[in-house]
Amino acid sequence: MLKNFDEIYAAVKSAGTKKRVALAAAHDKDALVSAADARREGLADFVLIGDTGAIAQILGDMGENVSDYELVESKSDAESAAIAASMVAEGKADAPMKGILHTSVFLKAILNSQLGLIDKKALLSQATVLYFEKEDRMMMITDCAINVAPTFEEKLKIAQNAVDFCLKMQIETPKVAVVTPLEEVKNSIPSTVEAAMLAKAGDRHQIKNCIVDGPLALDNALSLEAARHKKIESPVAGQADILLMPDLNAGNILDKSLRFFADYKTAGVVLGARFPLIMTSRSDTAANKLNSIACAMLQLM
Amino acid sequence: MLKNFDEIYAAVKSAGTKKRVALAAAHDKDALVSAADARREGLADFVLIGDTGAIAQILGDMGENVSDYELVESKSDAESAAIAASMVAEGKADAPMKGILHTSVFLKAILNSQLGLIDKKALLSQATVLYFEKEDRMMMITDCAINVAPTFEEKLKIAQNAVDFCLKMQIETPKVAVVTPLEEVKNSIPSTVEAAMLAKAGDRHQIKNCIVDGPLALDNALSLEAARHKKIESPVAGQADILLMPDLNAGNILDKSLRFFADYKTAGVVLGARFPLIMTSRSDTAANKLNSIACAMLQLM
Repeated sequence: MLKNFDEIYAAVKSAGTKKRVALAAAHDKDALVSAADARREGLADFVLIGDTGAIAQILGDMGENVSDYELVESKSDAESAAIAASMVAEGKADAPMKGILHTSVFLKAILNSQLGLIDKKALLSQATVLYFEKEDRMMMITDCAINVAPTFEEKLKIAQNAVDFCLKMQIETPKVAVVTPLEEVKNSIPSTVEAAMLAKAGDRHQIKNCIVDGPLALDNALSLEAARHKKIESPVAGQADILLMPDLNAGNILDKSLRFFADYKTAGVVLGARFPLIMTSRSDTAANKLNSIACAMLQLM
Repeated sequence: MLKNFDEIYAAVKSAGTKKRVALAAAHDKDALVSAADARREGLADFVLIGDTGAIAQILGDMGENVSDYELVESKSDAESAAIAASMVAEGKADAPMKGILHTSVFLKAILNSQLGLIDKKALLSQATVLYFEKEDRMMMITDCAINVAPTFEEKLKIAQNAVDFCLKMQIETPKVAVVTPLEEVKNSIPSTVEAAMLAKAGDRHQIKNCIVDGPLALDNALSLEAARHKKIESPVAGQADILLMPDLNAGNILDKSLRFFADYKTAGVVLGARFPLIMTSRSDTAANKLNSIACAMLQLM
């Protein structure tokens, strides 16, 4: 079991052959700093797609050696994204990464059905991977960024995506907590009704390789003491590896709360495609961006 | 402006005449410890309603002097709650407090329309009051416990309830942030649509004595740096006194996150009635319960 980000970095580096990331619209200092950091850390090599003149200039200003990178000229954001997607489809790169272009333009190229990069039945979802200090282990929260108001069926996929990533972190039979305001099933609180459905769907193996339980309040999901205090008997309570959130409002606000109030170390991952999709946000810290690239590389293992 | 819980305690104690709390179903050690703590702290005097034999016994075991309290015999939970509500209606007590009885039984007595304790147009709402360490000031999050999926009109009332409490904390013209996953208005994310409505309703003084803005993501609401990074021009961004949450899922999970992950000092208040309603939870810490009683007494000032 990988217990912190250092162990994730070590696992990625121990894999031997370095993976290649295709950075679309790379002519941006923020994006290039992330790439240079990840390269120096030994996590991946980078193909830099975009305005190659500007890319070379920025790399030079950063004191980087341009010959350490492969540069590919492109005239537009759409072309940059299409090149990145094609490189991954053709096996010339292992993961596409979003540079300075709109998410919609980036995703349009990735989702291009002719490339077959994403299964028709798959659902892209985001998860925040975090180091849970109190327990000295990793944990996931999903979805904090992509799916606004996922249906029950979509939540099965969001949970499965996160479980599959937990397996990459060598967490055997991950425990999924369906988080709600309280641990009782109440018709008046729809998220608790859906949590009961998801827990039973877990029992019926509609989500594989994991144990699901809910409804669980946040404290019951994470603290054995809180769970015991409420007399909750559950194989998940107090030991959740994955917090499955009711919707984007709750997921995003919890994610920001952990980063803003509790200064947690986190990474963002995009799950559900045949390969990792690297989409860091400009407002992420340098450490968070590097963690996100490391987790993307872990997906490839 | 009261900047921390110590200043709230000091303000309550400086008021002179001590207020009286009517504790319904007081025959419970947890409830009596809270009452004794609050009495010793000089926050309030207590009328203890319930099985007076059991109450006297528990107080004795705690080393308390029974004559420091007024005891009122009652044979059932419903009767205890009715006595507490009547005492407040008749001016014999200033606030009812829930002891060891079901919330529904307690609230039924309080909401008894014949007593006129709650305006017909009023909405009961919960808010978490917290000491925001990074900025050395108080802040509120609402609603984290009562209203499951409040409508736009209900949110106007929830916001007004919190604003009125901020005024008691001597925060002049409180700043209300309508919290959502992101700071842009998007038809595809309903909470951002409603946030725009609430912000404009604030401009039109549908919520009084405050400044409202939204949609704002959690980090933009609380950090000037994060707001500047996103180029948000707003009188509320980075300085929110009140975080108005999209629904109970998000509010409850954020509340628990702050207490569980960030170890914040908090209080819970129930707002909207003509008087404070004290409803602590068994799983609250002793400090949180005492803070909640202090905040209830502040409502009376």
